[in-house]
Amino acid sequence: MGEYRVAALERLIEQFEKFPSVGHKTAARLAYHVLAMPEDEVTEFSQTIIQAHKNIRHCRICCNLTDTDICSVCSDDSRDKSIICVVEDFRDVIALERTREFNVTYHVLNGVLSPINGITPNMLCIKELLARLEDDTVKEVIMATNATVEGEATAIYISKLIKPLGIKVTRLAYGLPIGADLEYADEVTLARAISGRNEVN
Amino acid sequence: MGEYRVAALERLIEQFEKFPSVGHKTAARLAYHVLAMPEDEVTEFSQTIIQAHKNIRHCRICCNLTDTDICSVCSDDSRDKSIICVVEDFRDVIALERTREFNVTYHVLNGVLSPINGITPNMLCIKELLARLEDDTVKEVIMATNATVEGEATAIYISKLIKPLGIKVTRLAYGLPIGADLEYADEVTLARAISGRNEVN
Repeated sequence: MGEYRVAALERLIEQFEKFPSVGHKTAARLAYHVLAMPEDEVTEFSQTIIQAHKNIRHCRICCNLTDTDICSVCSDDSRDKSIICVVEDFRDVIALERTREFNVTYHVLNGVLSPINGITPNMLCIKELLARLEDDTVKEVIMATNATVEGEATAIYISKLIKPLGIKVTRLAYGLPIGADLEYADEVTLARAISGRNEVN
Repeated sequence: MGEYRVAALERLIEQFEKFPSVGHKTAARLAYHVLAMPEDEVTEFSQTIIQAHKNIRHCRICCNLTDTDICSVCSDDSRDKSIICVVEDFRDVIALERTREFNVTYHVLNGVLSPINGITPNMLCIKELLARLEDDTVKEVIMATNATVEGEATAIYISKLIKPLGIKVTRLAYGLPIGADLEYADEVTLARAISGRNEVN
């Protein structure tokens, strides 16, 4: 008894299975959707993939993702160019932009120091950051790497490079997230919230 | 203050958002993965999409999905051609094939009757099924549409067309799924399990 097989469909499912957190069932569901699409949508989808991959590159100034030579933040004159917020990844920029309160420029490291994974300082966009500090425009660098061991180590490493230049270096505050229950907060967060406590006026 | 925007990335995320049960966050995750892919993988992915959509069609005999003229089940001589199992969708064929006990041929309706959604009998592959019953090869038609109102209605409609031809029409058994707890079974399933009870030998 031969099996029911459709090679072209299996190849498509395999392609979708390569995506992060997409298992076989989800991949199959995505593939079925492709089969059910009208032809012009399929062409558009396939072209968008190629175009996005081809056109998206790193901003020449801040190393953030952009489809132009200089990203929309760096080319925006209304941004406060005296503050650079250093993040690990372009997704962090998107998260910070969502606050709508942060009229600064960014610098995207595109990674964190991680000796265990072989990520060394020269693999991150650190020299591009130092180049931006050469004239006297920048007054403050905010280290906004993640609150993880690697993020913390990266922040400390870069701070040590920048401080001798006489530029103020700050780090995002640690503490309880808004809406958090003390009962469920982990002890490290709680210890940081205590040590970083502010006087009530 | 201008926003941080990457038009090519936004277009890609929008494309992924069109997929079923893919929200904005998942779409963004899939899009980021595309950006991180090596160029040859992106080309392959995009071509697989186009190829699958172009090459996959309905089998000329059973209306199942195939990338050949006649699907691998219909062209398999070891299959019992005297039994046709009628299903709604090619996914049902995949599910039934997983049992590895079902050496029959299939007929895929590619839908169910649903007056509320405007699905009428001539929109399903019913005439192709009737054409297969014209010679005397087929002795039994198993109605394996889903156990839903529409699936049931479709099974009854097609049964009424086939019975006058003197061909045996059967329906998959209803009852408790294996491993089910009586306590949690719904009353319709339980009623069907009671009315369909079998004598213990």
